[in-house]
Amino acid sequence: MPKTIKKVGVLTSGGDSPGMNAAIRSVVRTCAYHNIECIGIYRGYQGMIEGDFKEMGPRSVNNIVNKGGTILKSARSVEFRTPEGRKKAHENLVKAGVDALVVIGGDGSFTGGLIFNSEFDFPIMGIPGTIDNDIFGTSFTLGYDTALNTVVDCIDKIRDTASSHNRLFFVEVMGRDAGHIALNAGIGAGAEEILIPEEDLGLDRLLDSLQKSKASGKSSSIVVIAEGDKIGKNVFELKDYVEANLPEYDVRVSVLGHMQRGGSPSCFDRVLASRLGVKAVESLIEGKSNYMVGLREDKVILTPLEQAIKGKSEIDRELLRVSDIMST
Amino acid sequence: MPKTIKKVGVLTSGGDSPGMNAAIRSVVRTCAYHNIECIGIYRGYQGMIEGDFKEMGPRSVNNIVNKGGTILKSARSVEFRTPEGRKKAHENLVKAGVDALVVIGGDGSFTGGLIFNSEFDFPIMGIPGTIDNDIFGTSFTLGYDTALNTVVDCIDKIRDTASSHNRLFFVEVMGRDAGHIALNAGIGAGAEEILIPEEDLGLDRLLDSLQKSKASGKSSSIVVIAEGDKIGKNVFELKDYVEANLPEYDVRVSVLGHMQRGGSPSCFDRVLASRLGVKAVESLIEGKSNYMVGLREDKVILTPLEQAIKGKSEIDRELLRVSDIMST
Amino acid sequence: MPKTIKKVGVLTSGGDSPGMNAAIRSVVRTCAYHNIECIGIYRGYQGMIEGDFKEMGPRSVNNIVNKGGTILKSARSVEFRTPEGRKKAHENLVKAGVDALVVIGGDGSFTGGLIFNSEFDFPIMGIPGTIDNDIFGTSFTLGYDTALNTVVDCIDKIRDTASSHNRLFFVEVMGRDAGHIALNAGIGAGAEEILIPEEDLGLDRLLDSLQKSKASGKSSSIVVIAEGDKIGKNVFELKDYVEANLPEYDVRVSVLGHMQRGGSPSCFDRVLASRLGVKAVESLIEGKSNYMVGLREDKVILTPLEQAIKGKSEIDRELLRVSDIMST
Amino acid sequence: MPKTIKKVGVLTSGGDSPGMNAAIRSVVRTCAYHNIECIGIYRGYQGMIEGDFKEMGPRSVNNIVNKGGTILKSARSVEFRTPEGRKKAHENLVKAGVDALVVIGGDGSFTGGLIFNSEFDFPIMGIPGTIDNDIFGTSFTLGYDTALNTVVDCIDKIRDTASSHNRLFFVEVMGRDAGHIALNAGIGAGAEEILIPEEDLGLDRLLDSLQKSKASGKSSSIVVIAEGDKIGKNVFELKDYVEANLPEYDVRVSVLGHMQRGGSPSCFDRVLASRLGVKAVESLIEGKSNYMVGLREDKVILTPLEQAIKGKSEIDRELLRVSDIMST
Repeated sequence: MPKTIKKVGVLTSGGDSPGMNAAIRSVVRTCAYHNIECIGIYRGYQGMIEGDFKEMGPRSVNNIVNKGGTILKSARSVEFRTPEGRKKAHENLVKAGVDALVVIGGDGSFTGGLIFNSEFDFPIMGIPGTIDNDIFGTSFTLGYDTALNTVVDCIDKIRDTASSHNRLFFVEVMGRDAGHIALNAGIGAGAEEILIPEEDLGLDRLLDSLQKSKASGKSSSIVVIAEGDKIGKNVFELKDYVEANLPEYDVRVSVLGHMQRGGSPSCFDRVLASRLGVKAVESLIEGKSNYMVGLREDKVILTPLEQAIKGKSEIDRELLRVSDIMST
Repeated sequence: MPKTIKKVGVLTSGGDSPGMNAAIRSVVRTCAYHNIECIGIYRGYQGMIEGDFKEMGPRSVNNIVNKGGTILKSARSVEFRTPEGRKKAHENLVKAGVDALVVIGGDGSFTGGLIFNSEFDFPIMGIPGTIDNDIFGTSFTLGYDTALNTVVDCIDKIRDTASSHNRLFFVEVMGRDAGHIALNAGIGAGAEEILIPEEDLGLDRLLDSLQKSKASGKSSSIVVIAEGDKIGKNVFELKDYVEANLPEYDVRVSVLGHMQRGGSPSCFDRVLASRLGVKAVESLIEGKSNYMVGLREDKVILTPLEQAIKGKSEIDRELLRVSDIMST
Repeated sequence: MPKTIKKVGVLTSGGDSPGMNAAIRSVVRTCAYHNIECIGIYRGYQGMIEGDFKEMGPRSVNNIVNKGGTILKSARSVEFRTPEGRKKAHENLVKAGVDALVVIGGDGSFTGGLIFNSEFDFPIMGIPGTIDNDIFGTSFTLGYDTALNTVVDCIDKIRDTASSHNRLFFVEVMGRDAGHIALNAGIGAGAEEILIPEEDLGLDRLLDSLQKSKASGKSSSIVVIAEGDKIGKNVFELKDYVEANLPEYDVRVSVLGHMQRGGSPSCFDRVLASRLGVKAVESLIEGKSNYMVGLREDKVILTPLEQAIKGKSEIDRELLRVSDIMST
Repeated sequence: MPKTIKKVGVLTSGGDSPGMNAAIRSVVRTCAYHNIECIGIYRGYQGMIEGDFKEMGPRSVNNIVNKGGTILKSARSVEFRTPEGRKKAHENLVKAGVDALVVIGGDGSFTGGLIFNSEFDFPIMGIPGTIDNDIFGTSFTLGYDTALNTVVDCIDKIRDTASSHNRLFFVEVMGRDAGHIALNAGIGAGAEEILIPEEDLGLDRLLDSLQKSKASGKSSSIVVIAEGDKIGKNVFELKDYVEANLPEYDVRVSVLGHMQRGGSPSCFDRVLASRLGVKAVESLIEGKSNYMVGLREDKVILTPLEQAIKGKSEIDRELLRVSDIMST
């Protein structure tokens, strides 16, 4: 029979993403609903080591469902990578009476949680929070949908000026290892070409596509490029390359940058956060540990953290074909 | 062997929804990609009867992926309900060389398409376009995700003033027969209570919930009410009822209305529209007819139109429980 | 020589408006900049009577410049209309060491402040905060610019559906006694006709204009109507009247309601709030009292509160002509 | 007595800005209102040389009041700098029966117009369209207010992530020669420091301010930097400099870029565009030439184009002080 959970700790870790606050709120209120106490841990694992805790009742999370960022703050913790750091963290949790942990973050945060669990047999549940959507076991990570909307809003604005001046724009979006944002926002924004880390389309194809595009009567074009595109050039090198090879083009570059991580979460992300928070807490109550909650095939499911970390969240290759057709 | 499709007609019918233009664009460009001609039919079935057609090449749909409404316009057609009307429509299609039809709309539009198909054996493919998400065979209709974001944006604004004045707001959202918008936007906006057509929670529960809410220290509350809520009172009657029974509350009403149908589509709706448009045209090319394309369990699938019309898009009852927990 | 001000109290009163938080922040930080203490008074004059105060240092207003509503909350106070109420309020201020007051609100709030000043010779400075822009002595009240953007965003969405269906929409916006919102947002949203409290254009003119509009080839139209329009019919009666007289029109109504008061303030409102807060505090330091700070002819100026209350913020009649020309 | 104007040409030139379409619409409809014909000239002066004209009636500008960019497109024209180019342009105008010109653009566009006028005595009226607000004779250029809102929206998002991670962000905004955007959006976004071309605050002050900021308990900060800041370092060099001198800071850079030029215009910009378009056309009708229309001290006024070009639109230095106080 599982140990009864009396107090849950919740933290956000790694890069922040829209929906983290909604997830914190959900964890806090689900605890209250089940008459469990809840404490917030500031600045991720670092705050766990420093004992930077705060009791959280249901009213402490009023009016945050729509706020970007994380009220619990996030930080990287070098100290948590050491056994001493984790020992200190565990002592703080025990002292505070915390007997289970909800970790909102990405792969790195889950890895830290798994090690912590293996050392202290401490119940852990993960909620995938990152705009990159690069976590196995969920079709949508918290913040991904919001980031897509932010990106298409930005590119819509860029398109206004691109089409007024008949220009070509290269827009760099987030995604070091995963092309989800580039691929979906690229289709959403009507990009001519999309360059992603998962697929090396080659420079020839890009030139070819731009030439065809001009020939077909398009007067302006947008190319969306993930940070970690496979083509091996950064966006400014790519601009130089294209201008050298297609002198008829005057290329402008826009790097969207950190704003992609912020903003009020979309309805989708808020509902997702609410659902995942409920599932995370109730799974802990049921005695489960070392799982990540996620949404797949329209259902909230559990995936072992180990799989979530090792697995790869593949892009939907059909979308590459859709993108191709859309740029006809 | 299926007849080769040479020219596809596309129309939008019923209430407009964000993403319809993105779907039109997808249909037009998928036709071009496969070297098929495409014509746009204005004002739905009425334009079919009047022969209000326009050739559409890939450049004719430039810069519409992000536009709300429908460039092909929409209308209700009484005449199309008559055999004579449909005969005229068929003659116009034949005259124009159109040999297959993509209908973007809701249940009513699909019913019209099915009858038309049964009379003239004319290939039909449906794309679900309505903000209400009330169509069987797809987890998301075109425009639904956008409408959710519009609603939560509005309620976020209302909450600013509600919490500044410690007031209770009743917000009416669209949904005559389906509570999808109310339920999801209600959770997303942090509503205290959500009233939907699928479930009669009873007036007592509402009063009870509002009383508990005040007791728990909440200083302001939002109740989200679908147009067609089961409780049998409209939003103004509900206000009177609550004020009569809970005199400590000063209730304000906001009816969000038609703006929920408009606006630039979310990234999700644009990508969905692009995918569904490709699938619709390619299914026609493969010789299929009388299906609706949709997205279920993260995959683009076909559902027989007949099922799509007869089936009911159930709300996820687990969300009622999530809503309950979130209003702790 | 003026008495040295050592502690300023700040409150928000009347209907809330976007930019009030930015003004609170400005008052608090201007005090800190000049080494003056500042206390926040909750719920307007009611909180003054109840002694609901809070010390506010510069860090207490972090991250509120972009938030709608008012963190100090607002309320109407019946008690403050009585000499006893005001006496209690004054005692609380004296006890707390407050020796000057910044009142953020509208006419009613300023009137209360003036009476309070006349009774206790207590220094008062007003900041005009209301979306209605109906205060004499400033070309822009706090929140007005934001409300205009909210209204045109809503009407842009409504226009999507209006033009998809070739429909006529009547959109009611805020403004009981002042047509500023209707007139400016109407022009901004491309309204066909605009009905305001300041001018009775007559029902004939409306019918005439709608008929001409149809004749000129417009397929859809928006009429913007201020709550307090002079025509003497509410928006639903107006719909009935137009449909009875122009049966070719199918009129839809949208009442935008309270969302107009909320939302993140525009840049203009944030800068305005910052400027007015500085001026209000520095004017108190200079020994001035009974003024309202405002922006006129691009400059921050002072207007005697008495004038601000009695004067009328006239609409720019040239805009009526601009609206007329724009609906050609 | 002035020559009667029978046909007005309108063009957009230079960098595009939100509100240009609203201004085109206003020019077209004001012409129609006064029974004057109007033609649109594509791609600025280049289209004038190429005779790329289009008749524009009042219905041709339906539904553009809310669109970013310019439907008439914009371009730089080397050829127009030559007497031959201008001669060709003049011949085209004469051939088309155009007898007056409205030029929507910035300094460079106005200079071209003045030369053209001096050579052919051709009536010219300018409308200031640029986001930079760097034109003498108007307190607001078209697009400036919209750009401010775009910038604060972006920085609000960046602040979410900045405050979640306790980070320092350097945000570069547009403004090569003018600090209007940086200064106003900086205040609006609550920036710690603002660097502009008009004022060399010095690197020491920046370091000093950041140190004080940390000491005062601020956990995150935003510094807004105009492209053409006077400090002589670009934003990336500045980052290196600060990190070298204040190792406790981990600086992130965001260059907002071209998106600042796009987007749906704010209500303010739409109304401004409408007013300026009316004034431009009616001034031509009255026989005036070589003026720019603008808004100063809440009034639409005329400024001789020569002054508009030579004059400098000064920043409001009081705002520097407000910014200082706000970052207390």
